Amino acid sequence: MTVNVLFAAQPNRWPQYETPLRIALDDTGLDYDLRTEFAPSEVDYIVYAPNGSVQDFTPYTRLKAVLNLWAGVEDVVGNKTLTVPLTRMVDDQGLTQGMVEWVTGHVMRHHLGMDSHIVNPDRVWNNSAPPLATDRPVTILGFGALGQACARILTTLGFPVTGWSRSGHPLPGITSMSGDNGLTEALTGAQIVVLLLPATPGTANILNAERLALMAPGAFVINPGRGPLIDDAALLAALDSGQIAHATLDVFRTEPLPNDDPYWGHPRVTVTPHIASETRPPSASRVIADNIRRSEAGEPLLHLVDRSAGY
Amino acid sequence: MTVNVLFAAQPNRWPQYETPLRIALDDTGLDYDLRTEFAPSEVDYIVYAPNGSVQDFTPYTRLKAVLNLWAGVEDVVGNKTLTVPLTRMVDDQGLTQGMVEWVTGHVMRHHLGMDSHIVNPDRVWNNSAPPLATDRPVTILGFGALGQACARILTTLGFPVTGWSRSGHPLPGITSMSGDNGLTEALTGAQIVVLLLPATPGTANILNAERLALMAPGAFVINPGRGPLIDDAALLAALDSGQIAHATLDVFRTEPLPNDDPYWGHPRVTVTPHIASETRPPSASRVIADNIRRSEAGEPLLHLVDRSAGY
Repeated sequence: MTVNVLFAAQPNRWPQYETPLRIALDDTGLDYDLRTEFAPSEVDYIVYAPNGSVQDFTPYTRLKAVLNLWAGVEDVVGNKTLTVPLTRMVDDQGLTQGMVEWVTGHVMRHHLGMDSHIVNPDRVWNNSAPPLATDRPVTILGFGALGQACARILTTLGFPVTGWSRSGHPLPGITSMSGDNGLTEALTGAQIVVLLLPATPGTANILNAERLALMAPGAFVINPGRGPLIDDAALLAALDSGQIAHATLDVFRTEPLPNDDPYWGHPRVTVTPHIASETRPPSASRVIADNIRRSEAGEPLLHLVDRSAGY
Repeated sequence: MTVNVLFAAQPNRWPQYETPLRIALDDTGLDYDLRTEFAPSEVDYIVYAPNGSVQDFTPYTRLKAVLNLWAGVEDVVGNKTLTVPLTRMVDDQGLTQGMVEWVTGHVMRHHLGMDSHIVNPDRVWNNSAPPLATDRPVTILGFGALGQACARILTTLGFPVTGWSRSGHPLPGITSMSGDNGLTEALTGAQIVVLLLPATPGTANILNAERLALMAPGAFVINPGRGPLIDDAALLAALDSGQIAHATLDVFRTEPLPNDDPYWGHPRVTVTPHIASETRPPSASRVIADNIRRSEAGEPLLHLVDRSAGY
């Protein structure tokens, strides 16, 4: 019997995904029909993006699973009309590798003090060398697949890395902490803090004034995770006082970042336009197709969302 | 018998090195005397910097070896009054690790296109993701200890790395080339080229107009090696034509870089003040002390300079 797969991300994604999805689905050997329109009652799987056209899942009466194209699921996880399994994207090549590259790059940039050379109108030649990475403690909040992948490469580069997550995700050879006391300990004296937590009610404003004050004076904040993780007013105050030397932010409560947002043009803030981790169509399509194959074969789905935890 | 060790780097280095050198020499168990002044005929070893006060070695009649504090020896290797063994500094922690950090940081910076976010007065939100490292070929010219250490970490980050050296230094798992034909092949289509060659008559202006034209259009040049490796006029022309998108240069024919040098203020050039690789006193002192111990014990010296090759 033919498996009907609805592509329900925004229309501009269809030309990027149609060919890679067909290639990946062909490889599964399934008899499938992939389209951007179906009668809802005929759809078996939805390849989904939370900003697409499907917000009410009620009419999809034979739906077997919703396969999210994004790593973030906060805009769909609470949808009460969704009663079938939901998977999130874990695209090692596009999401994880892209994130590792962005995080490594900006950690190195702040570690080396590059900005003072990139913008140096007075032609200052000040050849004092920065400390070595071994003397620059880095803390990663959020120690799942992305955080651990970043920790591995930063450790290889010599940084002493501490990973923190709510419930604890140990990684051999790297200090990991959990819980509220662990969070205080992980932030105390950190010179670079990378935010890779999911957006949940429990992580909103997790980086607040009190916790910013725990970091080493002149520390750096790097946020490729989710906008709501940061208490924006507290961060701006910490930047103005110098407690935080610079913040590099890839995600915001409102995106694109509004033109009048105080982060734009702040001398101690770098805005990047939500590019740290982008799903790449070829590898993401293979993840989607593999989950459809698994579902049809009665195997467990990969990257299944825990709806009660919110991620 | 007491071993007399003359410290002959510039005077401002003595306060940085005296304690670490004494600690490292104490650890050898040798009976030594370490000072900044001796009668030349009483000196056994010189801890040396080419810009220090000793340029004529003739009066040092009982000298056993000259231990250079720098990795670069081009300003001493041709000194005809020097007839004893000369060692160069290979300080894994300070020189190699510092170089790996600087190279990794600037490769990532160009790879990710960071500058357009660091300086973004028009608040442009252009969220097209950069290619992954796997699609960004990097070529390293000079594939000794420093080049290979950089190649290892860049390979771990996903970049396809090609290493080139005059005589060939194979490194398992990484493409390496040698000779003139290999140089042409290594540069052809490279998107990022890192220069880590020594300064010798054979490497002067090795990156000339013809070779810059081999690289991918819009490629990046990163030079933490030596200033004379680059034909400066050819690089400036390639920057102006757009063949080279940006050059990040840490070393120059004249340092500090003169205020009126065209590299300063060029919109496609970043000048860093010879900070990529700095000897750190504690680890460098251990290397020096170990070579003195080896010499006294009749063991071969480490990091001995091949005077005929020039490095």
